[in-house]
Amino acid sequence: MNDPRLDALRQAVPGLHLKTDPADLEHYGRDWTRRWTPAPLAIALPGSSDEVQAIVRWANAQRVALVPSGGRTGLSGGAVAAHGELVVGLERMNRVLAFDAVDRTLTVQPGIALQAVHEAAAAQGLLYPVDFGARGSCSIGGNVATNAGGIRVIRYGNTREWIAGLKLVTGGGELLDLNRGLVKNSSGYDLRHLAIGAEGTLGIVVEATLKLTDPPPPAQTMLLALPSFEVLMRVFAEFRARLRLQAFEFLTDRGLRHVLAHGAGNPFDDVHPYYVVAEFDAADEAQQAAGLAAFEACMEQGWILDGAIAQSQAQAQQLWRLREGITEAVARYRPYKNDVAVRISAMPAFLAEAQALLGEAYPRFEVVWFGHIGDGNLHINVLQPDDVADEAFMAQCGRVTELLADLLRRHGGSISAEHGIGLVKKPYLDSTRSTAEIAVMRGIRGVLDPNGVMNPGKLFD
Amino acid sequence: MNDPRLDALRQAVPGLHLKTDPADLEHYGRDWTRRWTPAPLAIALPGSSDEVQAIVRWANAQRVALVPSGGRTGLSGGAVAAHGELVVGLERMNRVLAFDAVDRTLTVQPGIALQAVHEAAAAQGLLYPVDFGARGSCSIGGNVATNAGGIRVIRYGNTREWIAGLKLVTGGGELLDLNRGLVKNSSGYDLRHLAIGAEGTLGIVVEATLKLTDPPPPAQTMLLALPSFEVLMRVFAEFRARLRLQAFEFLTDRGLRHVLAHGAGNPFDDVHPYYVVAEFDAADEAQQAAGLAAFEACMEQGWILDGAIAQSQAQAQQLWRLREGITEAVARYRPYKNDVAVRISAMPAFLAEAQALLGEAYPRFEVVWFGHIGDGNLHINVLQPDDVADEAFMAQCGRVTELLADLLRRHGGSISAEHGIGLVKKPYLDSTRSTAEIAVMRGIRGVLDPNGVMNPGKLFD
Repeated sequence: MNDPRLDALRQAVPGLHLKTDPADLEHYGRDWTRRWTPAPLAIALPGSSDEVQAIVRWANAQRVALVPSGGRTGLSGGAVAAHGELVVGLERMNRVLAFDAVDRTLTVQPGIALQAVHEAAAAQGLLYPVDFGARGSCSIGGNVATNAGGIRVIRYGNTREWIAGLKLVTGGGELLDLNRGLVKNSSGYDLRHLAIGAEGTLGIVVEATLKLTDPPPPAQTMLLALPSFEVLMRVFAEFRARLRLQAFEFLTDRGLRHVLAHGAGNPFDDVHPYYVVAEFDAADEAQQAAGLAAFEACMEQGWILDGAIAQSQAQAQQLWRLREGITEAVARYRPYKNDVAVRISAMPAFLAEAQALLGEAYPRFEVVWFGHIGDGNLHINVLQPDDVADEAFMAQCGRVTELLADLLRRHGGSISAEHGIGLVKKPYLDSTRSTAEIAVMRGIRGVLDPNGVMNPGKLFD
Repeated sequence: MNDPRLDALRQAVPGLHLKTDPADLEHYGRDWTRRWTPAPLAIALPGSSDEVQAIVRWANAQRVALVPSGGRTGLSGGAVAAHGELVVGLERMNRVLAFDAVDRTLTVQPGIALQAVHEAAAAQGLLYPVDFGARGSCSIGGNVATNAGGIRVIRYGNTREWIAGLKLVTGGGELLDLNRGLVKNSSGYDLRHLAIGAEGTLGIVVEATLKLTDPPPPAQTMLLALPSFEVLMRVFAEFRARLRLQAFEFLTDRGLRHVLAHGAGNPFDDVHPYYVVAEFDAADEAQQAAGLAAFEACMEQGWILDGAIAQSQAQAQQLWRLREGITEAVARYRPYKNDVAVRISAMPAFLAEAQALLGEAYPRFEVVWFGHIGDGNLHINVLQPDDVADEAFMAQCGRVTELLADLLRRHGGSISAEHGIGLVKKPYLDSTRSTAEIAVMRGIRGVLDPNGVMNPGKLFD
C-alpha cells in the first residue's frame, strides 16, 4: 500500500510491524459488537512504549486518527476502526515486566491477557482479583480503558481499585508516568484515575502496575432457585449480613434455558423464575455452618424454592457455568446488549419498571437478562430473530434504549456499568452525565489530545 | 465594611452569613501551618449548595478569589487566605443528609467533622474507616480535598476509596452530581476522582456520599521495640504474611521521648531505637495465637527487643497514644513538616539516604520522624529551636526540602503523601510530577475554573 502517510510512519518508526492485508484490516478493525464494517487505514503492532510514542507523534503530524486495540472483546464498539484510522494493536506488548513481593505489585505491558495476569499472580501465591468471562482474550489495557468490572466486584471492586500505576502516552504524544506504584500520593490531580475508563480517548496505556492481594479463603458455591425479584433482594440482604460474599450473581429462567440448550447440566427438576449463584468464604466449620444457616433461614421463610450446594471444585464450576455460559450461549443471536446500573437500593423499583418497559417494547424479541445484584448492575440481551434484518433490529433496539435511558435518568442510573460508552451507547450518554459534565469531559479531552487523534467519535463527539 | 464587592455579594446571596471582624478574618484565614499572615477579604458561611453556587458565580463576575475552608487542620497551607480572598467556610453545612442500609452509604454535607461521620456510621452498626488524629476538628470536605490517609490506610486505603458520590460546584459555577452512589459506572471520565485530592482548586465539594463497611473484628494491639530500620522492615513482612493487619505504625526513640515528656506512660524500661504500634485482627483464639506466634518468631530471631501486648481497650489506647500523641507533643516547636512517600519496597534505601541527609543538613535542629510503613509514608518533623528566628528556620528547611525532593525524585517518591501540596510544598511539586503532568493539570484547572477563582496560588501557579 502506497499511502504516503504510511510511508511517513515507516520512516518515523523504523522496523514498525505494519499490516495492511484486507484480512488483517477486517480482523483488527472490529470488536465483539460486529455492527460496523471495519475499514482501518492499517494496523500497527508496536513493540515498545517508544514506538507507541512515535506513532502518536506521527498521528499528530499527519492528523491520522488512532484506535488503541487490545483483545477487541469490547461490547460497545470502543475498539472499532471503521473510518480510515490506524489501529494500534498492543498484542506484541504482552509481557510481565516486574513483580515486587514487598509492594505486592505486578507490572505488565498493556497487551497481556487478563488470564495471563491471573497466572502470573498465582505463581507468586497472590491474586489479581478482577475476573470475568472474557479473561482468556481480553487485555489489561482494555480492562483499564473500560474500568472493567465482572463477577467479583462485590468483594474486590472494579479495575480502578487495582491500578497502582499507569504509563500513558497522551494524545499529545507525552509519556506520563502516573502514580508509580505509590500507596499514598497527594500531589495534585490523580491523572491515573482520569485515564482509567477513558476508553482510549485521552491516550494509550503502555504499562500498568497492578496491585495484588492474598488469595481468597476456600469458598462455598450455591445455586438458589427463587420465586421473585423482591425475594431475591431479601435473600441478598440476608446472605450479605450473615456471610462474607465473594459473588452474588443472578439469572432468569430464560437465561438458564439458553445455557442448558448449549450443553450445561440442570441441577433442578423444576423450572423457577430466578436463580442465583452465590459464593462466600467457607474457610472453617464456623463459616460453612453460617452458610448453611443462611440457606436454611431463607428456606424457612419460603424465599428459596430449591438449592444446590457444590460439594467439589468441579461441581462449583458446573454451577458457575450456568451463569457465565449465558453470553456464549446467546452469542449466535447477535444480541443487542444493554449494560445498565443503578444504586443497589434502587434495583427493585428500577427493575419493575424496566421489565414492564421491555415486555411492551419488544413483543417480538426475546430478552435475556442477568446480572450482579450486589453491584446494582443488570445485563439485558435482546436476541435478534433470524427473520429480522439488521437495520430494523438495531433501529428497534435503539428506540427501546432511548426509553431505558429515560428510566435510568429518573432512577439516577448509568447507561453503562462496565462495558463503556464507545459507539453503541454514545447517543444515550446524556442520560447519565449532565450537559455540564460532558462539557468538562470535552474540555479535558482537548487538554490531553489537542489534535483529536485519540479514538475520535467514541464516548462523545 | 463597605467594599462594593461585598455589597454585590450580599445582593447576590440574600441572607448569606458574612463575617468581616478582624478576629474572624484571622481565625478563618489560616490553617495549622501558622506561617502566613491571614488577610482574607471576608468570611462567607453558606448554608446550602445553592448559596455556594451563588457565591462562586459572584466570584466569577467580580473576579474575587475563593478559599474553601473546612476544619483548617491542614498542614500545607491549602486553606490559608492571605491575599484578599473570600473564605468559603463550610461549617454550617455539617449535617448527615441520608443513610441507606442497602447501599451502605452515608450522605453528608462537607462541613461535618470526621468524628461525627464515625459516630453516624457506628449508630448504624457500620464503619467509616478513614481515621487520623485530627478526627475531631477536620471536615470531610477537607479530607476529600487532600485525599486524606491516616492510620488505617494499610487496611482500608485512602479517602478516595470511600467516596461513592460527590457534588461539586466547579470554579465555573456549575453544580456537578458525580457518580451518585453507583458501584459500577463506566460512562466517561471519572470526574469524582479528579476532584478528590484537588485541594479546592477545581471547585467546592458541597455533598459527599460515603461508603460504609462492616466494623473490623476485635483487634490485638502490640507495641514492639526494634533495633534498626532493616529489622523493622523484616518484622513488617513477617507480621503482614502471618496476620491481617489493621495498622502498623512506627516511631523513633526521639518521638517517644517527646510523647513521654508530654505525659504518656512508658511501657518499657530501656530505650530502643525504633518502636512499632501494630494492630491486627484477633477475632478468635486462632487469630490471637497467630499474633503471639508472629511475635515469638520475631523475638527468637532477635528482631524484637521488647514488647507490650494490650490486655484491654484502655491499654490499647495507651499504646496508641505513644504514636498518635507525637503531633501534639511537638506542636509547641512549630515544626516544619515533610510528609513524603515512596513505594514500600523503596523505604529502606530511601530512608538510609534520608537519614544521612537530614543528619547533615540539620546539625542544629531536632528532627522527629515517624510514619506508616505499610504505606511507604514517612513524616519528618523539624523542630524550630526557640533561639532561631522564623525566617532563618524556614529558609533552612526550604533548602533541605530541596535536597529531599531530589532524593524523592531519584527514588520515585512523592513530596506529599497525604497532607497535600498547598503553599508549603508547591516549590517542590516538580519532584513528583513531571513538567508534562503539571501542564496537563494546568489545562484541566483551566477547564473547570476558567477565571481562576478557585484557591489560586495553591498546588501550582
